[in-house]
Amino acid sequence: MNTSQTTVGLLGCGNVGAGVARMLIEDRDFINQKLGWPLSLAKIAVRDASSRRPWTPPRELLTTDPYEIVGNPDIEVVAELMGGIEPARTLVMKAIASGQHVVTANKALLALHGREIFEAAAAHKVEVMFEAAVAGGIPIIRTLKEGLSANRIHYFFGILNGTTNYILSRMTREGLDFATALAAAQKAGYAEADPTFDVEGFDAAHKLIILTALAYGVLPSLDDIHVEGISRLTPEDFHFARELGFVIKLLAMSSRDQEGRLEVRLHPAMLPQDSLLAGIGGAMNAVHISGHAVGDILLNGPGAGMMPTASSVLADMVELARAARANCSARVPALGWCRLSDERPKPMSEVSTAYYLRFTVLDRPGVLARIAGIFAEKGISIAQVIQKSAAPGEEAVPLVMLTHTAAERDMNAALKEADDLDSVIESTMLIRVEERCAARGAA
Amino acid sequence: MNTSQTTVGLLGCGNVGAGVARMLIEDRDFINQKLGWPLSLAKIAVRDASSRRPWTPPRELLTTDPYEIVGNPDIEVVAELMGGIEPARTLVMKAIASGQHVVTANKALLALHGREIFEAAAAHKVEVMFEAAVAGGIPIIRTLKEGLSANRIHYFFGILNGTTNYILSRMTREGLDFATALAAAQKAGYAEADPTFDVEGFDAAHKLIILTALAYGVLPSLDDIHVEGISRLTPEDFHFARELGFVIKLLAMSSRDQEGRLEVRLHPAMLPQDSLLAGIGGAMNAVHISGHAVGDILLNGPGAGMMPTASSVLADMVELARAARANCSARVPALGWCRLSDERPKPMSEVSTAYYLRFTVLDRPGVLARIAGIFAEKGISIAQVIQKSAAPGEEAVPLVMLTHTAAERDMNAALKEADDLDSVIESTMLIRVEERCAARGAA
Repeated sequence: MNTSQTTVGLLGCGNVGAGVARMLIEDRDFINQKLGWPLSLAKIAVRDASSRRPWTPPRELLTTDPYEIVGNPDIEVVAELMGGIEPARTLVMKAIASGQHVVTANKALLALHGREIFEAAAAHKVEVMFEAAVAGGIPIIRTLKEGLSANRIHYFFGILNGTTNYILSRMTREGLDFATALAAAQKAGYAEADPTFDVEGFDAAHKLIILTALAYGVLPSLDDIHVEGISRLTPEDFHFARELGFVIKLLAMSSRDQEGRLEVRLHPAMLPQDSLLAGIGGAMNAVHISGHAVGDILLNGPGAGMMPTASSVLADMVELARAARANCSARVPALGWCRLSDERPKPMSEVSTAYYLRFTVLDRPGVLARIAGIFAEKGISIAQVIQKSAAPGEEAVPLVMLTHTAAERDMNAALKEADDLDSVIESTMLIRVEERCAARGAA
Repeated sequence: MNTSQTTVGLLGCGNVGAGVARMLIEDRDFINQKLGWPLSLAKIAVRDASSRRPWTPPRELLTTDPYEIVGNPDIEVVAELMGGIEPARTLVMKAIASGQHVVTANKALLALHGREIFEAAAAHKVEVMFEAAVAGGIPIIRTLKEGLSANRIHYFFGILNGTTNYILSRMTREGLDFATALAAAQKAGYAEADPTFDVEGFDAAHKLIILTALAYGVLPSLDDIHVEGISRLTPEDFHFARELGFVIKLLAMSSRDQEGRLEVRLHPAMLPQDSLLAGIGGAMNAVHISGHAVGDILLNGPGAGMMPTASSVLADMVELARAARANCSARVPALGWCRLSDERPKPMSEVSTAYYLRFTVLDRPGVLARIAGIFAEKGISIAQVIQKSAAPGEEAVPLVMLTHTAAERDMNAALKEADDLDSVIESTMLIRVEERCAARGAA
């Protein structure tokens, strides 16, 4: 048995950092037993050594100077667990430049500066690992990078943000409106005081960018993908979804269309109730991947939280420790592709999907005919219509349509015309319908 | 870009071998693009070069002499896809001895001779990889070996045999008896003409042995684990399962009990209808893993089939190609543990679970009292009883009990006494109840 050790330093000791510190200390013997040598926690850089933390590391490990870790030749692995762009980016780049391996849980950093970071790592022959950056404890990075490495990915669909999935689950099950469900999520600790980053889809979009890079060798910029949150959804939409056999999820999606063009988008979507992802409730995350050889697989588990995320950080540390010991730090490219492509996802206007539309119309004869006429002109065919009559004393009624597949450009043009009609009195709700993530293999 | 190649040879060209050959040939450009150099298929050893195959490889690649591959210094990776113990074992050992890396989908070989094979590989500094040996296309080997490497595994539950899951799904949904469901599975190509190996649990038990080794660093022998198939289950049991809120699955399980002792068993089990595994229908496989840090995760996908299994073989080949290029073939131990333990699972008689019991009794007063008395004496407490009255003209009625957790030894003693009663006229059906694999995180 090799009796030396692998030394690690942590940047940050918030929720994830505290979990990682806890595992490195409490599970030291177990990891040693598995690995054959210990992972030794040398130092933890924090902003304020006297803050309260979710788990309290030994005081002597704390420092307020990150450069006791970054650039320290006695520390082989630097775990960046601070979050945010700066100073995380500068510290990661300096760690790489000084030949240290990096583990990070920072999806924003990788989504926005991944190319620069991975190129620097390749140039300095160090590794940057990031299992914890997407879907918490679920080993989705390894699965796309190595487990499915020989698959051409047809598509993947992910539920990548626990906060929004919790809110949507409450809205689905209890008929809550968005504001009430959000307040419940905040009370339960699933949503932050300022929930914008989660509910408007940016957190999930960062994760989508990373998974797209692993699946397709293309690291899209945030500007190149359609990002749409859940705050505009209403209880009525959940009601109609159920009536139509759907569940509403915030879906992260990448796929290749029939011409081979890449589609990357993040928006609420209606999924068939029997689809693999429809049953993923609460704050869970899940990813459904369809590959040309493997077929359809699903990974499902806790997408966040102190210990699940720490589990993934530790897995990366263990892998780095083994790689360093075997002198093979450049075994797999960071994103699993020997070269990234410069391909850009196709513009949203060229995407085609089916649509759920909820018009708010005056309860008068001929409204449906006029709207249907506009859609016919644009070549959009209607699959199903639900028209309710108005309650006594009410003039406005919902008119719900499901369309067959249509191009987003045509849909936008049709909706603009429809919304200009006098009898359409509110702007129309549009939710895309995804039929591809259909049922698990029938018996 | 490195312009040389990694050469592979296949032993066997049945279902899996043909799928692997197909990917190596049809996806050559894609793999080259990902890897940076090609995986080159040098040779395929078959018994009869003129047989019909699920996919037809170029005739010039075929040979009937496996030693054109095994021991050939121009072939770096040998994929053993023949199945069975001999000559697979001899060929694998010779490939290892001549310094070739091995990929295998052969669960029986690894379950029964894994120790010898992995020790030889370590001694010769080559790798033996086997993602395809368990759960087809699902990357469960990588997940346990690397993705969850820092987790102490509380337990894992697996549905590891598609044939039996297909049969059980049909019995659950359609009320079929075992023989009819088996015939349907044979007709649909999910069961072989001689189904013993699948339906009596041996195939799943081999996979359970392999997963146990990855999760616990213990490679149990087949004799040390309880193996029980599905052929004795009756439509009545499925009926009562539904009435009690359960689904019957053939469950592969390993866990550590509260004293830290290892339990490994494979038998039909009643799972709560809302458990993670209950919804896995048809020929799908799934594994639910609970770790001390990660919590509960589920992997779900096709557990067999030509292309899903080939997907896993190719993933191993890609990993070996990268490892060889980075000169790090001894990076991770084959089972993820630097040393296997000699621990043995505890005997089945010391296992404790809850039980479903279906007695067949004469419809007379006092029968329940006598059976309950026997159970009370053994310290087994009863959670629920369903007693139906006899149909006109029938004397025998089912008496169903759910017990609280009891030791298998006490249960066996109690059942022996009960089955000796005059009023108990058939031997009693026992199905263990597993409550731990409970619901996915609530909203």
